[in-house]
Amino acid sequence: PDWVVEVKNNIMQLKRIYKFKNFAEAIAFTNRVGDMAEAENHHPALTTEWGKVTVTWWTHKIKGLHKNDFICAAKTDELFR
Amino acid sequence: PDWVVEVKNNIMQLKRIYKFKNFAEAIAFTNRVGDMAEAENHHPALTTEWGKVTVTWWTHKIKGLHKNDFICAAKTDELFR
Repeated sequence: PDWVVEVKNNIMQLKRIYKFKNFAEAIAFTNRVGDMAEAENHHPALTTEWGKVTVTWWTHKIKGLHKNDFICAAKTDELFR
Repeated sequence: PDWVVEVKNNIMQLKRIYKFKNFAEAIAFTNRVGDMAEAENHHPALTTEWGKVTVTWWTHKIKGLHKNDFICAAKTDELFR
C-alpha cells in the first residue's frame, strides 16, 4: 500500500513517500537510493525535503512502467529498513 | 531569468532547474545545496534526476516567499558556479 501508481504527463510512475525525523536523515536516504540507482544503472526522481523523500520510478525509454521499476522499488524499501 | 515563481497548492515558490551531465554530478550538487540548507537552517525541495536537479525555495511558516528565499536562491546559484 506504500507505493502508488501515478500518471504524470501521460507516463505511469511508481511513487512512494518515506518519512524521516529531519533533513539530514532524508538526504542520507537520498544518497543511499542514489548509490543503488547508479549500481543498477536505472535512475529515479528523488525529491528531498525536510523529513521526507519522495521516490519515483519509471522507465524513460518506454514512458511507463517496466518490471525493473518494481524491482528497484523493492530495493528502495530494503534501503529504508 | 533562471528562477521562476510558481504557485503550487496556493503557495508561491521560487524554482530553478540545474542541468548536469550525469546522475553523479546531479546528486553531488544536491548534497552541496543540502549542506548549505542545513547551515542556513532553511530547507528547499531538491528533486534529483539523471542530469538534472530542481531546487524549490519557499517559507513554510508564511506559505509563501520571504526575503530569505531569495537569499538562498542566490546562494544556490553560487554553488552551481
